[in-house]
Amino acid sequence: MTTRQQAVTLDDKDPLASFREQFLLPEGVIYLDGNSLGPLTKAASERLRQVIGEEWGQGLIQSWNAAGWHVMPQTLGNKIAKLIGAQPGEVVCADGTSVNLFKLLSAALQLRPGRRVIVSDDGNFPTDLYVAQGLTKMLGGDHEFRLVGADDIPAALDETVAVLMMTEVDYRSGRLHDMVGLTKKAHDAGALVLWDLCHSAGALPVDLNGARADLAVGCGYKYLNGGPGAPAFLFVAERHQNAIYPAIAGWHGHAEPFAFEPGYRPADGIDRMLCSTIPVLSIAALDAAIDVMLAADINHIRDKSIGLFELFAGLVETRCADFGFQLVSPRAAARRGSQVSFAHQDGYAIMQALIERGVIGDFRAPNLLRFGFAPLYLRYQDIWDAVDVLHDIMATEAWRQEKYAIRKAVT
Amino acid sequence: MTTRQQAVTLDDKDPLASFREQFLLPEGVIYLDGNSLGPLTKAASERLRQVIGEEWGQGLIQSWNAAGWHVMPQTLGNKIAKLIGAQPGEVVCADGTSVNLFKLLSAALQLRPGRRVIVSDDGNFPTDLYVAQGLTKMLGGDHEFRLVGADDIPAALDETVAVLMMTEVDYRSGRLHDMVGLTKKAHDAGALVLWDLCHSAGALPVDLNGARADLAVGCGYKYLNGGPGAPAFLFVAERHQNAIYPAIAGWHGHAEPFAFEPGYRPADGIDRMLCSTIPVLSIAALDAAIDVMLAADINHIRDKSIGLFELFAGLVETRCADFGFQLVSPRAAARRGSQVSFAHQDGYAIMQALIERGVIGDFRAPNLLRFGFAPLYLRYQDIWDAVDVLHDIMATEAWRQEKYAIRKAVT
Repeated sequence: MTTRQQAVTLDDKDPLASFREQFLLPEGVIYLDGNSLGPLTKAASERLRQVIGEEWGQGLIQSWNAAGWHVMPQTLGNKIAKLIGAQPGEVVCADGTSVNLFKLLSAALQLRPGRRVIVSDDGNFPTDLYVAQGLTKMLGGDHEFRLVGADDIPAALDETVAVLMMTEVDYRSGRLHDMVGLTKKAHDAGALVLWDLCHSAGALPVDLNGARADLAVGCGYKYLNGGPGAPAFLFVAERHQNAIYPAIAGWHGHAEPFAFEPGYRPADGIDRMLCSTIPVLSIAALDAAIDVMLAADINHIRDKSIGLFELFAGLVETRCADFGFQLVSPRAAARRGSQVSFAHQDGYAIMQALIERGVIGDFRAPNLLRFGFAPLYLRYQDIWDAVDVLHDIMATEAWRQEKYAIRKAVT
Repeated sequence: MTTRQQAVTLDDKDPLASFREQFLLPEGVIYLDGNSLGPLTKAASERLRQVIGEEWGQGLIQSWNAAGWHVMPQTLGNKIAKLIGAQPGEVVCADGTSVNLFKLLSAALQLRPGRRVIVSDDGNFPTDLYVAQGLTKMLGGDHEFRLVGADDIPAALDETVAVLMMTEVDYRSGRLHDMVGLTKKAHDAGALVLWDLCHSAGALPVDLNGARADLAVGCGYKYLNGGPGAPAFLFVAERHQNAIYPAIAGWHGHAEPFAFEPGYRPADGIDRMLCSTIPVLSIAALDAAIDVMLAADINHIRDKSIGLFELFAGLVETRCADFGFQLVSPRAAARRGSQVSFAHQDGYAIMQALIERGVIGDFRAPNLLRFGFAPLYLRYQDIWDAVDVLHDIMATEAWRQEKYAIRKAVT
């Protein structure tokens, strides 16, 4: 691509083009960080107005039933299920990702009695690793958390392993792990698999049941656009649900929460994975945003994500060829998620300069510039413009001075 | 009191009278269920408008720093600390009550190595009991959850007990337990104490450090008016904090969450008790509501709570003397929280009739009518009017017919 008009032409033919107007995006910003915090939708803004002013303000306690708050973990879970290849009754939305990881890892150890090892790869997101460390330390004895390189996972799966925990899309590089293949390898070794979908749900087609996955978690505030700290979701394959006695046995996971019995009796099915009262405002925003996403074809989302990546990577490699960017993300579409990461020795300073000029991505130490592609609101012309800004920064004398000043300040 | 005008006169002299206008209360409703879900404040409504439209909508990812989202668990925790007799740095706000109970009970078992017993009373709120059951079952071995009657607590405290878990105000009867006395008894036995403040924070003065309490949790959506499912808070006395390795070791409890290290290193102090990303919308509403409460004198709140109770109980016992209500809450102010509970064989039907007529309390099986008193927005005249409605329901022929119809339908 050699002209901005070519990008505009791609936008004109984009089957997802009409979705952009459903987002309330700030003026003058090209937002390439929807993989950290998705933007506000008109639907979420309107739904929050209703939940706050009418349901809470006017309906008060009666809205738990009248407005359906009580069943939101399930109704929203069933919507998310459609995005990740799960059946109704296999997903609930509540708590944060870390808490849900704790619930599911402890469940996995129960489901594989006699096996005491959790395996993960060292590229996994830190909170996944921390939760596994905390749980195995708490349980003590011969419980072990085994951390290996991603390519060494198959060799690490032996008869002591209860569960393999993987994040499908690596948060730094964007590498997409092979859900079908790794799940099969784990099952062949007698282990379960827990998939973290934080960087895949809403960004690419996911088929948990197609892969025979056992457990999964995912985040509500990235590609799902649920708002800051939106609750996470968790998936338990139907075949496992009733064999789990929840580690965090809270009242919303009880068979009859409002019978106020002194003894815990887990609810049937996925409901037993609930524990605390849900943060209704935060979950309502996510619910509204998911409706927007479900109106799109996830295959269109994936196709456009690939197109945005190709355009961005291609433009950086041609127009910015002299500036020392190194592509870290896998080049092949089948091997990556919906982001591009470049390494650069001045990565931090470059990202600061981009943000000052309205191009928002993020930086991951030590040297990664990370740009996320959310096809519902990003246009090809935005990608062209973003690389234009990047080129301008790198090519100007002002930037060279800025960079040296930053280097001097840091050293 | 024999006339409504006497109630109005009390309102005229009420030092808290001006607070009512800071709440957005529905027309025609007398809300006696603020102990289940506090109402919307103007401050929360305005703060949410700002967080949604400006901070999220315009500021996007940058609001984590620019709007202080990252430090809300601590800044809000420090505000709540003022209500419960804690120091800055001893309280954080995050997750739900059940999850926080799990964190603190597992911490207590660590802090008392060799002791494996959790003790609680059978009047405690069910989720407290369930979480203790789930934790002891998960840990196995000789871990035990010992459930006794409230009056048998002292006898149950022996050298095997790691922690006594009590809810300060019983959710059914409103009975207020002796925090100072029970904490001392637990300490004398070498055990820690975990106080659940769900029905006391914001309703009466609490002095955790004055009682030398070790651990505490509490709810954001009752007397604190944080909105449906608002995050809970947790307290760890400063002397214990750095001895805890968190059971749920999430990234927000890491010493450097954004260093993305593979190994967990707990943050210094209370921060290590955090795990997941916080639900910003829900926590912002609570933050705004707490500011309203902190502008009031908690002793005025307590005094008025006692006055509202006396008026309600007195009017029911005089004007409704013939209708079979039995006071379940302790009569002495020093022995109860901010609610009144009456037993009545037709309790469920009576509460339905009250709610239809705009007097909202709640019902707890098998036969309890429960009315909560939140002195910031309730007036003495509301109490007069509520009992007036109750009297009218009980005294009319229509109610007798309704009651018999309900009895017939049920049997």
